[in-house]
Amino acid sequence: MRSDVPLLDKITWYIVRSKGKQVRPMLVLLSARLFGPINEASYTAAALVELLHTATLVHDDVVDNAYQRRGFFSINALWKNKIAVLVGDFLLSKGLLLSVQQQQFHLLEIVSRAVKEMAEGELLQMEKARRLDISEAVYYDIIRQKTASLIAAACSAGAASTISDARIVEHLRLFGEKMGMAFQIRDDLFDFGEDTEIGKPVGIDIKEKKLTLPLIYALRKADRPTRRYIAGILRNESERTEKVAEVIQLVRQSGGLTYAREAMCRFRDEALELLHHTPDNPARTALRDLLFFATERKR
Amino acid sequence: MRSDVPLLDKITWYIVRSKGKQVRPMLVLLSARLFGPINEASYTAAALVELLHTATLVHDDVVDNAYQRRGFFSINALWKNKIAVLVGDFLLSKGLLLSVQQQQFHLLEIVSRAVKEMAEGELLQMEKARRLDISEAVYYDIIRQKTASLIAAACSAGAASTISDARIVEHLRLFGEKMGMAFQIRDDLFDFGEDTEIGKPVGIDIKEKKLTLPLIYALRKADRPTRRYIAGILRNESERTEKVAEVIQLVRQSGGLTYAREAMCRFRDEALELLHHTPDNPARTALRDLLFFATERKR
Repeated sequence: MRSDVPLLDKITWYIVRSKGKQVRPMLVLLSARLFGPINEASYTAAALVELLHTATLVHDDVVDNAYQRRGFFSINALWKNKIAVLVGDFLLSKGLLLSVQQQQFHLLEIVSRAVKEMAEGELLQMEKARRLDISEAVYYDIIRQKTASLIAAACSAGAASTISDARIVEHLRLFGEKMGMAFQIRDDLFDFGEDTEIGKPVGIDIKEKKLTLPLIYALRKADRPTRRYIAGILRNESERTEKVAEVIQLVRQSGGLTYAREAMCRFRDEALELLHHTPDNPARTALRDLLFFATERKR
Repeated sequence: MRSDVPLLDKITWYIVRSKGKQVRPMLVLLSARLFGPINEASYTAAALVELLHTATLVHDDVVDNAYQRRGFFSINALWKNKIAVLVGDFLLSKGLLLSVQQQQFHLLEIVSRAVKEMAEGELLQMEKARRLDISEAVYYDIIRQKTASLIAAACSAGAASTISDARIVEHLRLFGEKMGMAFQIRDDLFDFGEDTEIGKPVGIDIKEKKLTLPLIYALRKADRPTRRYIAGILRNESERTEKVAEVIQLVRQSGGLTYAREAMCRFRDEALELLHHTPDNPARTALRDLLFFATERKR
């Protein structure tokens, strides 16, 4: 990521220092290792996937006006919004350029599709947030696009670096997709204070009128007066902020958390089943561990 | 650009309706036509270049908090910042995906390099804006990256679609680069109210502490007290806003506008000279006309 622009160098250095769990590049390398020794193409894929993920996080923080990320200040907090948007664009295009130069065209198709889907997923979620008519099926569409698509891309890009059989690459893509779905449901559960350690503040999604699975279930299953009461709170911005704790309590009582946890386990088990049909080696064990980490993590 | 997300469809429709002069796709098609009949690859290149340009404009409006663009409301004014950033990301990745799917790898390299350079150029300009130590050479670096790179990409991508000789493609890239330099200097002159019709408001760059060629020249050539006086105004945000007219007047008196106009004509003439060594056909005449339009336009 080195550049001739000193400011940019400083920022990318800062980004490298405050890096996250790096789950996505791990998935790339393990999916590669399932089928053969890790090679140059695997490393390119791992770097590219993490770069694109980073680019979208930098953009997310701008649009959310978030001032912290992983316990560090966000780029837009330390520099300016304008700089953060440009840094995101730079990371995105530099990553793509890298794979063009290395002639990794298959990789390029996998990841540019994921970037497109991520943007579509976020936009779909925002569109649906306005009205409260979001069904479980639409929720799955949203998280498939905004989260699972990049995790699926990570797994299929990794596999594609060590094996050329298109069916197997697609098999890994599907594994990643299921894992990504489970990963996002786990994330959405945190918003209700479920099993969370320090980590994230609670109720952010509710304040932003983002309907996630526990709340969708509650709106569907609660008795009529409760449903109306919750909907009333959600429609009003100041009510949403003031009565977050109450909404969380009602969702809990409706069984929304249990329902979401069961859905998450279903996706996890589908992923496990797919994993079962891959070569039995240490990479597979590690992928299994990562899958359980994704669904049992506390932050 | 059609998408399954209705909100996105609505926004891209709005973007199409409020399109600009489309100089860049024109350059692609004319550069292609110089060497042979326009083909599918030329159209892809033209669409991609305009898409990327549009994506960066949408992002620009977010970071500048601009509420108007080409006499229409900007995307961030009508929708939200978050949506505008995501729409920019969507256009960018969709455009790149399109060219991956059509296996236009050369095109992909040309344009992803340009996107990277545009972001670097903007960042370099912002970095330099903080201090007032910008030299003429650095100014040329900035406009080469932020503006000329995409116009150069347009010309080389067009040529590459109808001729495979790498030297000729590079020749057209250079033509585009020179034209882009002239184009940006013309744009920067508008900020001083030079030859502008209605169009742009004056003094925006000065208020943002962006040092462009007329001002750089003035700071270098004015007598010492005047230089100090101008620098004092530029360093102070409220002074910059209040005394814009005065700065413009001082730049005029220093001969900064004449100097910049001469520099612009030098780049235009270098472009003309390059054009002279291409086949003499109607496309060449049109390119020549466009070049003069770029340097003589009133908006």
